[in-house]
Amino acid sequence: MTEHSRQPSVTVLGLGPMGRALAGAFLDAGVRTTVWNRTPGRDAELIARGAVPASSPQEAVAAASLTVVCVVNYDASDAVLREDAVAAALKGRTVVNLSADVPGRARDAADWAAGHGIRYLDGAIMTPTPSIGTDDAVLLLSGPEELYREHRPVLAALGGTHTHLGEDIGRAAAYDIALLDVFWTAMAGYTHALALARAEGVAATELAPFAQGIAAILPPLFTEFAADADAGTYSGELNPVTSAASTMAHVVHAAESHGIDAGVMRVIEGQARRVIALGHGTDGFTRVTELLAGR
Amino acid sequence: MTEHSRQPSVTVLGLGPMGRALAGAFLDAGVRTTVWNRTPGRDAELIARGAVPASSPQEAVAAASLTVVCVVNYDASDAVLREDAVAAALKGRTVVNLSADVPGRARDAADWAAGHGIRYLDGAIMTPTPSIGTDDAVLLLSGPEELYREHRPVLAALGGTHTHLGEDIGRAAAYDIALLDVFWTAMAGYTHALALARAEGVAATELAPFAQGIAAILPPLFTEFAADADAGTYSGELNPVTSAASTMAHVVHAAESHGIDAGVMRVIEGQARRVIALGHGTDGFTRVTELLAGR
Repeated sequence: MTEHSRQPSVTVLGLGPMGRALAGAFLDAGVRTTVWNRTPGRDAELIARGAVPASSPQEAVAAASLTVVCVVNYDASDAVLREDAVAAALKGRTVVNLSADVPGRARDAADWAAGHGIRYLDGAIMTPTPSIGTDDAVLLLSGPEELYREHRPVLAALGGTHTHLGEDIGRAAAYDIALLDVFWTAMAGYTHALALARAEGVAATELAPFAQGIAAILPPLFTEFAADADAGTYSGELNPVTSAASTMAHVVHAAESHGIDAGVMRVIEGQARRVIALGHGTDGFTRVTELLAGR
Repeated sequence: MTEHSRQPSVTVLGLGPMGRALAGAFLDAGVRTTVWNRTPGRDAELIARGAVPASSPQEAVAAASLTVVCVVNYDASDAVLREDAVAAALKGRTVVNLSADVPGRARDAADWAAGHGIRYLDGAIMTPTPSIGTDDAVLLLSGPEELYREHRPVLAALGGTHTHLGEDIGRAAAYDIALLDVFWTAMAGYTHALALARAEGVAATELAPFAQGIAAILPPLFTEFAADADAGTYSGELNPVTSAASTMAHVVHAAESHGIDAGVMRVIEGQARRVIALGHGTDGFTRVTELLAGR
């Protein structure tokens, strides 16, 4: 038993695809891992790999000093954690909530945790499930620095890069939501492009290598436009928003000529047109940042 | 004069930022370059570097067997090329139109060119102006293969990768419009994310390194989803559209709680919700490709 108590241990609540990946990475790293999921039957493979099943969330959280929660959102994590028996079992222990939601929910949960003597970190996983446990994983965490340092050795089992964004508990969720905004908007652009290409007789696999080329030019532009946004200056020397708006109109026209909904690009073109109407036609499209921020 | 006639030569019509980059790359490669722009005064730097100014488009196109056109769109290129004097001067010569527009306009222009004894290629430049003349440039061309082969040695001065997409003259524009769809939608996502991050107290330059990480995960996903789209199967095993829709709702909620317009993400979330309502909730978000294509 002494050996057991020295072995690092963790509890994972939530065994969706990401929760299973987290538990699997802990097991691979030799961490004693207790698992629980509201819907039964998700733990069979993990148990075969050495995970300890728990019959209730209170039993699960009592099995380790650190509980990692990964469910669909904070409604779901609140529903598990805020039951009296669970809250009581968590007293003096640490919760790292990797469920995604808006920053306000993380702040609210941290307040609740403080009121119940529960130590609390919020986090976000920025990479897909196959990255977990590999160098490619990117995790963001926020909350008390000392708590982060204490649990970092066990969390390191999840692999990759862990960044502590500071003491503001909402910060990981803020980064998460902004980055998911980038991700899903880009994915929506890609699916739309695939539909448009198909209508023009171009197969998705023909377009994909060139779409990869587009993705490859984004990182340096992201850096450049971030500096612009912080400075509030949006040079359109190389690509004025008037030119961008013209391109956007082509996309709308080409899509709609094939009966393909162009709702996303219509909204984007509208943003570009408003920037022009406000007298910033020689600026770059990224001045939309100011428009959206109401400036 | 004999030497002059052996020296490769080209005419560039349109001296916006991209047209100037093209002319500059031809000059750097030792190509005799004649330039013209509707609005005067854009050619000073190019003349200093050895370009030959023309006083009219007909004079310009008569100076070389190959004319490269790069103006804002096909309305603009038609306005230049379809003047009687210009069309007459182009007879027996080649036009490579690198102006961006929808595929139908390229097909229409090729028909017009054929009717006037003008040899015609359509093309698209997929990379920003600083790439022109470097290994990073990506050019797509479509139209008669033999014409492409004939002019490839001179066009090689523009640098990078040149891909001939086939004899269908509209193909370069089809790729172009689909890839610009990806690009501008992704940029719109990024500018929105910057506005959202700012509202949460996160500077753009703090977010940018992580946004680069998001861009870095796109290329392999683009390849994977292209295969899905061509096969018509959209596995949501790792990330079902129900989960994506939940994330999208968080983005909308977080943005609107700060008074930031979430019109783009509202449309995207609506697409995800329709996929779910059609009974495909366990598929991935990219099934939206089928929805957009009306299937």
